[in-house]
Amino acid sequence: MVRDIDWDKAAKRTVGFSGADLENMLNEAAIQAARKNKTEIEFSDIEEAATKVKLGPEKKRLQTDLDRKMTAYHEAGHAIVTYALPNMDPVHRISIVSRGMALGFTLIPPQRDRIHETKTHLLEQITSMMGGRAAEALIFSEMTSGAANDIDKATMLAKNMVVEYGMSDLGPINFGPTVDTTEWGGRYMMDSKISPDMQSKIDSEVKKIIDKSYQKATSILSKMKDKLDRVAEELIKKETLEGEEFEKIVGTKPALAKINS
Amino acid sequence: MVRDIDWDKAAKRTVGFSGADLENMLNEAAIQAARKNKTEIEFSDIEEAATKVKLGPEKKRLQTDLDRKMTAYHEAGHAIVTYALPNMDPVHRISIVSRGMALGFTLIPPQRDRIHETKTHLLEQITSMMGGRAAEALIFSEMTSGAANDIDKATMLAKNMVVEYGMSDLGPINFGPTVDTTEWGGRYMMDSKISPDMQSKIDSEVKKIIDKSYQKATSILSKMKDKLDRVAEELIKKETLEGEEFEKIVGTKPALAKINS
Amino acid sequence: MVRDIDWDKAAKRTVGFSGADLENMLNEAAIQAARKNKTEIEFSDIEEAATKVKLGPEKKRLQTDLDRKMTAYHEAGHAIVTYALPNMDPVHRISIVSRGMALGFTLIPPQRDRIHETKTHLLEQITSMMGGRAAEALIFSEMTSGAANDIDKATMLAKNMVVEYGMSDLGPINFGPTVDTTEWGGRYMMDSKISPDMQSKIDSEVKKIIDKSYQKATSILSKMKDKLDRVAEELIKKETLEGEEFEKIVGTKPALAKINS
Amino acid sequence: MVRDIDWDKAAKRTVGFSGADLENMLNEAAIQAARKNKTEIEFSDIEEAATKVKLGPEKKRLQTDLDRKMTAYHEAGHAIVTYALPNMDPVHRISIVSRGMALGFTLIPPQRDRIHETKTHLLEQITSMMGGRAAEALIFSEMTSGAANDIDKATMLAKNMVVEYGMSDLGPINFGPTVDTTEWGGRYMMDSKISPDMQSKIDSEVKKIIDKSYQKATSILSKMKDKLDRVAEELIKKETLEGEEFEKIVGTKPALAKINS
Amino acid sequence: MVRDIDWDKAAKRTVGFSGADLENMLNEAAIQAARKNKTEIEFSDIEEAATKVKLGPEKKRLQTDLDRKMTAYHEAGHAIVTYALPNMDPVHRISIVSRGMALGFTLIPPQRDRIHETKTHLLEQITSMMGGRAAEALIFSEMTSGAANDIDKATMLAKNMVVEYGMSDLGPINFGPTVDTTEWGGRYMMDSKISPDMQSKIDSEVKKIIDKSYQKATSILSKMKDKLDRVAEELIKKETLEGEEFEKIVGTKPALAKINS
Amino acid sequence: MVRDIDWDKAAKRTVGFSGADLENMLNEAAIQAARKNKTEIEFSDIEEAATKVKLGPEKKRLQTDLDRKMTAYHEAGHAIVTYALPNMDPVHRISIVSRGMALGFTLIPPQRDRIHETKTHLLEQITSMMGGRAAEALIFSEMTSGAANDIDKATMLAKNMVVEYGMSDLGPINFGPTVDTTEWGGRYMMDSKISPDMQSKIDSEVKKIIDKSYQKATSILSKMKDKLDRVAEELIKKETLEGEEFEKIVGTKPALAKINS
Repeated sequence: MVRDIDWDKAAKRTVGFSGADLENMLNEAAIQAARKNKTEIEFSDIEEAATKVKLGPEKKRLQTDLDRKMTAYHEAGHAIVTYALPNMDPVHRISIVSRGMALGFTLIPPQRDRIHETKTHLLEQITSMMGGRAAEALIFSEMTSGAANDIDKATMLAKNMVVEYGMSDLGPINFGPTVDTTEWGGRYMMDSKISPDMQSKIDSEVKKIIDKSYQKATSILSKMKDKLDRVAEELIKKETLEGEEFEKIVGTKPALAKINS
Repeated sequence: MVRDIDWDKAAKRTVGFSGADLENMLNEAAIQAARKNKTEIEFSDIEEAATKVKLGPEKKRLQTDLDRKMTAYHEAGHAIVTYALPNMDPVHRISIVSRGMALGFTLIPPQRDRIHETKTHLLEQITSMMGGRAAEALIFSEMTSGAANDIDKATMLAKNMVVEYGMSDLGPINFGPTVDTTEWGGRYMMDSKISPDMQSKIDSEVKKIIDKSYQKATSILSKMKDKLDRVAEELIKKETLEGEEFEKIVGTKPALAKINS
Repeated sequence: MVRDIDWDKAAKRTVGFSGADLENMLNEAAIQAARKNKTEIEFSDIEEAATKVKLGPEKKRLQTDLDRKMTAYHEAGHAIVTYALPNMDPVHRISIVSRGMALGFTLIPPQRDRIHETKTHLLEQITSMMGGRAAEALIFSEMTSGAANDIDKATMLAKNMVVEYGMSDLGPINFGPTVDTTEWGGRYMMDSKISPDMQSKIDSEVKKIIDKSYQKATSILSKMKDKLDRVAEELIKKETLEGEEFEKIVGTKPALAKINS
Repeated sequence: MVRDIDWDKAAKRTVGFSGADLENMLNEAAIQAARKNKTEIEFSDIEEAATKVKLGPEKKRLQTDLDRKMTAYHEAGHAIVTYALPNMDPVHRISIVSRGMALGFTLIPPQRDRIHETKTHLLEQITSMMGGRAAEALIFSEMTSGAANDIDKATMLAKNMVVEYGMSDLGPINFGPTVDTTEWGGRYMMDSKISPDMQSKIDSEVKKIIDKSYQKATSILSKMKDKLDRVAEELIKKETLEGEEFEKIVGTKPALAKINS
Repeated sequence: MVRDIDWDKAAKRTVGFSGADLENMLNEAAIQAARKNKTEIEFSDIEEAATKVKLGPEKKRLQTDLDRKMTAYHEAGHAIVTYALPNMDPVHRISIVSRGMALGFTLIPPQRDRIHETKTHLLEQITSMMGGRAAEALIFSEMTSGAANDIDKATMLAKNMVVEYGMSDLGPINFGPTVDTTEWGGRYMMDSKISPDMQSKIDSEVKKIIDKSYQKATSILSKMKDKLDRVAEELIKKETLEGEEFEKIVGTKPALAKINS
Repeated sequence: MVRDIDWDKAAKRTVGFSGADLENMLNEAAIQAARKNKTEIEFSDIEEAATKVKLGPEKKRLQTDLDRKMTAYHEAGHAIVTYALPNMDPVHRISIVSRGMALGFTLIPPQRDRIHETKTHLLEQITSMMGGRAAEALIFSEMTSGAANDIDKATMLAKNMVVEYGMSDLGPINFGPTVDTTEWGGRYMMDSKISPDMQSKIDSEVKKIIDKSYQKATSILSKMKDKLDRVAEELIKKETLEGEEFEKIVGTKPALAKINS
């Protein structure tokens, strides 16, 4: 039996979930409630189930205090940068509990479907992804291989901006491979040949996006170092911070900027 | 039973349709008429059925006013630029109703088979495709990933002009892969080897076409900003504008320029 | 029953036909004669059958006067340039009747087997192929995608001249892939590796051949514009011109220059 | 029967072993104990079994004194450089007994799971791998092909640092091929196209890492040449040195530096 | 029955023939003798049979006098250049009778197995191959595609000299793909990676060999133009010249130079 | 029955033989002994059998005196250069008897397993391989294609030195494709991407090694021309020289230099 669930909140939490994700999540929530001998599924069961479905089960790993500290600053870095960017959705949850391959995670579920994906929001997403590495460098003057996944995703977005979305100084031109069907029939398939000169310009544009985003993330964290420290400290203490706890430290995130709604 | 259909208009609306498209369209029109308990198929059923066959069924998505506004300007951009170009066919319909992957669409069915595809008309098609992105930039100083499909198609046309149609400064030479049978027998198959130098020139020619077309689209929209605003406003109000409604705002499109018959 | 056929003329008309082509042609000629209730096959049946076997059946397409005019000038361009080049065979037939993918055609069957294919004749063939595009540009200041096939074939010939026949400034050297068996046994198979530098030189040589040929075609048509106009006008009127009708307008083509026998 | 095993020590020795490795190791240890008519497995059986599972069985090869001397200095080079680097785990065992393809080996098992892999530790690993070649050059002014495996692994790590971990002057950008699934669904697959310019920068960064590491290894060995000589001499005498024996010569390795814990 | 055959001469004529070639040749000779109602095979039957086995049967093609003249000069060009080079074997037969794809041929069977293939002889072979094109250019200021096969083979030899035999200014180094087994076991397989710089040098060396050889062929023919004319005239008259007839015109070829024995 | 065999000598002669090689060799030796009606296998049977297993059976080819002279100097070149290099094993046998594809051979079996393959020894191997071509050039001012195999093997070794063993000025870095499993688990597979710049440096390093080795071979032969002549003369007389006969002419080779033992 399911009762007292804030379904609006649950719906928002699961934007982007597939039908299979939702089914898995509800099953998982029921199992967890049953394990705790509860007769009703509560929102906390939903929350935990949603996380498990997306990131895998918790994984205990032997860690030193310093390990935990580094993870805490990495995740806090993501969270603080995300907080400071006007078009990013609010942080939903931060955790330094290991799940799957990840040492921690920062959840930023979209508040609703993005109808238009804008250049501004794409740049902020990349900057947010840079927040972890930027914090490592700022606090420890060190880099970890744990940022590789952030770097990979950020590079992918930056490439898409340049190669497919026409959002760089190279203009509204497509440099990717193409399979397409036109509105009035006719089918195109063409492997994109690009000269070394043009590829070099593409590489430079991608690098420029990454470099600027990293600098912005670093600059945000430098200015908000106090809050970064406090979030990291709280994370080390509690392991997981809900969005509300995070906002108690950093302040409430203002409503999304209009243009990117 | 089918009555009172303006078959000339229907034929024009379906230029470029395959036999299967036509069959699907007629079935769809019959189903729609039946749903509305009509005993006869009317032209509006044909119209809706033709659109559904080509673009997929309507799709309700939760959108903000700003989302709708951005879509409206994007489609209005296509429509206004198309209107302003002397060799483009007239706009048949504009809509901000989501269908399939598209947030909106602007229909520009050819008035009849193009016997000759001219350089002038190809350049105008590319400029028309640039109209959406140009409107985004002009009105919102923003870019959306929704223009990616326009950019992809425009790049494809520009490449064909340079690589296969010999319509660039590189002259009447073919740079693509070739499979051909000569008039008097004999069969050629040859994978085109091109030096980095020549590929670089090809890339520049393609980019030049895209850049000029984008500038032209921007220039048209700047000059016709009043009409752009009014079309967008009407679209936000009515969601779909038929060609006649569009022309009430912008004026009747003159007959096609002679050369491109 | 076949009677009164000028077999010499028929043989000349079918130089380059395969055995299967000839069989198809004779069957087709018999069918056509039967359709017209003739008891004998005449040369006109052979002529039509030969064209159908090589280019496909006639195809009615809705065209404007301007469409027909553009096609007429394109084909007249091929015919006039061919006429003006001393080593090209005489024009056999010109037509603006659509067949298969083609809007028109100009038939230039070889008068007999070319024993030696010379550099001079290859250059004239390329120039002849450029005649259609050159006419479009000269008369309409426009280019059509209909010239793509001419451009493709001309590029192929130019490449062969440079890469396999050693007929460019790069000298008697082969740049293509090679499979060969020597006179005294021994078998070579080698995929040709070419540096970007050398490929760039090859590209330039190919482009030089195309550019010069296009300029020559343009120059011929400029000088013979009167005849170009009269052939195009006749074509618009009659749709198809036999070689004799064409030569009535432009004059009889002199015998082939000696060297290219 | 298993008795008197220091299981803590055994666990540390087998960090990074798979389940199959552990099973093979225990079987092997039991077999060895049985061969020696022991009724109980001792730690020395575990030790030998662990080595055999990872490196293969001992292999007698006819060697000259000089062969043994070169191997001894190569392995001593790895051990000494490892000892001198503050973030490397302590040397567990050094041996000039041939196993599989290897003439000798230096075991440096991680003391526990590395939660964070840092840039500092990666650079030290590469420097440690350079220790063998550096010793060859320093002592014999000679190079052997036996260092090829060290060089291969070191290059791989250096490439990962530059291409995937964003740890070079090129910044936090990914240059490798990518298959990824985002947190919120959506799947990317993209073969990384890189211009010759950018690839050249990548190559330089990789080379810079290798060159600096090799210089550091050489510099360490030059400064600690006395200890290098003594370790090599002991190795020639005893063939295998346990970590304790090694540390008797070079001194106890200080606890790992904090940052890389 | 085979009688009165000069078997020494026959053996020399068939150096390089495979067992199957020899069998085919003898069968063919027997058939020809039988057709002519001879009871014995004579040397002329052997000669004709050997040619047929290697080059295919005679092929009658309709040719003009000029066609025959061009072929005659092409073959005479090969023969004269071959005659003038001290290390080439003597010309055995020249013919302008079409066989297979060839319009004519010049037979230069090796007098015996070449034990050592020298740089000098390879260069002379290439020069001999250039003789046909050089004669076309010298006499007709024209080039034919018939030289394509000569050009292909000459390029192949020149490439081998540079890439495999180490006979260019690039020195004794191999640039080709390699599969090899060493004398003492061990197997190598390596696809040769070559930089554009080095490939460019290879291309230049190959071109240099071709260019020099072509110049030498041209220079020889210029100096021996009288003999070239007389051989061509005789060929036009007799269609085929035996080695003895050729040497009556040009003089007896001196014995092979010593070094290339 | 096998008797009176110097098994030490036989073992030395067959270093590097596989089990199958050894079995083939013993069978072959037995067959040869039987053919000669010997009841016992003697060392000479072993020697001949070992050569046949590795190089194929003797092959009689018609040769001129000059052919034999060129082969003799080529093999003598290998032998003399090998003799002059301090780290090369002694020459075991030189022959100008044709076997398989080879016109002659120089056997240099390793005296025992090379435990360490050093840079010095690799360079000497390459120099030894250059000895044949160097002799051709020195004595005949000519080059033969027979050196192609030497050149191929020498290039391969030089590439390995640069690309895998880190023995060039490019330092201890790997440029080859890599498949590897680390000591502690984890598997790498990566196709090596290399920029044209770096590949050009690799090509230069390989060429530098080859060029220097060739110069050294030439310099050795120039200084030892008397001995070269005498060895070649003896070879022409006897066809095969055993190591002892060779050393009678050139002197006994000093023991291997210490470092490369």
